[in-house]
Amino acid sequence: MSRTALVATNPKVQQLRRLVRRRSSRSDAGAFVVEGPVAIGEALRSGAEVDDIFLPVDGPAALLDPLRDEAERLGIRVTAVAAGVLGGVADTVTPQPGMAVVRMAESTVDELGADAGLLVVLAGVSDPGNAGTLVRTAEAAGAVGIVALTGSVDLYSPKVVRAAAGSLLRVAVLTGATPADLDALRAGGVALVGTSADGDVVDDVDLEGPLALVLGSEAHGIGDDVRGRIDRWASIPMAGRVESLNVAVAGSVLAFEVSRRARRAAAIASGAPSAMP
Amino acid sequence: MSRTALVATNPKVQQLRRLVRRRSSRSDAGAFVVEGPVAIGEALRSGAEVDDIFLPVDGPAALLDPLRDEAERLGIRVTAVAAGVLGGVADTVTPQPGMAVVRMAESTVDELGADAGLLVVLAGVSDPGNAGTLVRTAEAAGAVGIVALTGSVDLYSPKVVRAAAGSLLRVAVLTGATPADLDALRAGGVALVGTSADGDVVDDVDLEGPLALVLGSEAHGIGDDVRGRIDRWASIPMAGRVESLNVAVAGSVLAFEVSRRARRAAAIASGAPSAMP
Repeated sequence: MSRTALVATNPKVQQLRRLVRRRSSRSDAGAFVVEGPVAIGEALRSGAEVDDIFLPVDGPAALLDPLRDEAERLGIRVTAVAAGVLGGVADTVTPQPGMAVVRMAESTVDELGADAGLLVVLAGVSDPGNAGTLVRTAEAAGAVGIVALTGSVDLYSPKVVRAAAGSLLRVAVLTGATPADLDALRAGGVALVGTSADGDVVDDVDLEGPLALVLGSEAHGIGDDVRGRIDRWASIPMAGRVESLNVAVAGSVLAFEVSRRARRAAAIASGAPSAMP
Repeated sequence: MSRTALVATNPKVQQLRRLVRRRSSRSDAGAFVVEGPVAIGEALRSGAEVDDIFLPVDGPAALLDPLRDEAERLGIRVTAVAAGVLGGVADTVTPQPGMAVVRMAESTVDELGADAGLLVVLAGVSDPGNAGTLVRTAEAAGAVGIVALTGSVDLYSPKVVRAAAGSLLRVAVLTGATPADLDALRAGGVALVGTSADGDVVDDVDLEGPLALVLGSEAHGIGDDVRGRIDRWASIPMAGRVESLNVAVAGSVLAFEVSRRARRAAAIASGAPSAMP
């Protein structure tokens, strides 16, 4: 812990501010920011490479002291910042007491394809809340990774990181992916599943084996450059006059249907008498 | 269409602004605001009682002229407002060209209970995006209505209305409900289903018959005043180290599982050979 608390004009604080606010700065640095004691603690325990931790001198000791101890045990630098400094860094009106700079740990297409499980692919999802929710859903539904094609929201932006609630540190991540990367996944045996009102009822769609659930933009769905690569189209039957589901909802319903089928298959394989409907 | 376009200081514009911005004003007036040509068109076609439509004089004629014609056929008043006026009324930075004042059409507990279908109950959901998404999911999953207990976000706030994308006008709505209302539903044969990590795996939970899916607050889950009234607890199995799902995701996964089971039961009842897993 450095002796003096950094003020807003300090170059390290300025760089932190750029990492919070600018996609290009994050991309150049290969690092992003997680906010708040809970998220920082998750980062420390996730095995992610944490470059720096900034804690306000006037922060809640009961939350920050254990964090400081944990960081010091791991040999991670903790820097004190003056009161109010993080308020000028954050993109929210109620900044959390503490930020950590975490290195991006991007996976390759080969790594993702070799894992032969479930992938969630964002093909134009632009709302950070939806993207973050889908990252969280991906982990919860047992996906091995999340892929964001260029044209999707930056998965490392603060709003996505917040909505993902730690999951971004625990699933494999590939950003800046291209349609050619989807081709590579398909060549490796991963089937691309898209949602469409014209698709087969999801109940009748094969959801076994290595799968990538592809989710399009909120406004325009899946674009033409990806559309032709979809192997199976699934439709979630809808009542009423709803034109489409929220994309995070559609993706989550599909992802958890994949995991439900896996549970069912496992129960049948084990010969267990199952009440599962 | 009135001859002169209203300016920002006009009392009707001032009242519109209050309806957009203040829950108490909406509650006093028994009315709320939908924004944009698409939403206004949906309101006109939903059978909702539309009190007033305000269209900017400089709005896109291709969108607004058909709307004006439709409103006039239905005998609904259309008022022109000066350029920029709706920008001062809206709570967003990019206001839509047009607003309509719509009367709340609240259902009673008796009406909801008698419909004997699926209900979605918000018991402390506070994020407007989550609430609106759940309204949209409720319609899509075939729910007969949505119930918001006191302490939940106002379903008629602009952000909820936007996220609900028209569904608020098409499902039965009951706001300001109390735990006693839940008792009345239960007395009428509706089973309350809550989500909890400690619950039975959802696969094993009975989701037939009149059901109310109860969704708690993002931060604290289902409160004690409602907890004791839950008839069945369902757990959505989660991989990884996710502590909880986004509430709109959890509610949607459950709601669509209810409709999946209904499809399956219908297929079995009809004797159709079914490939449904």
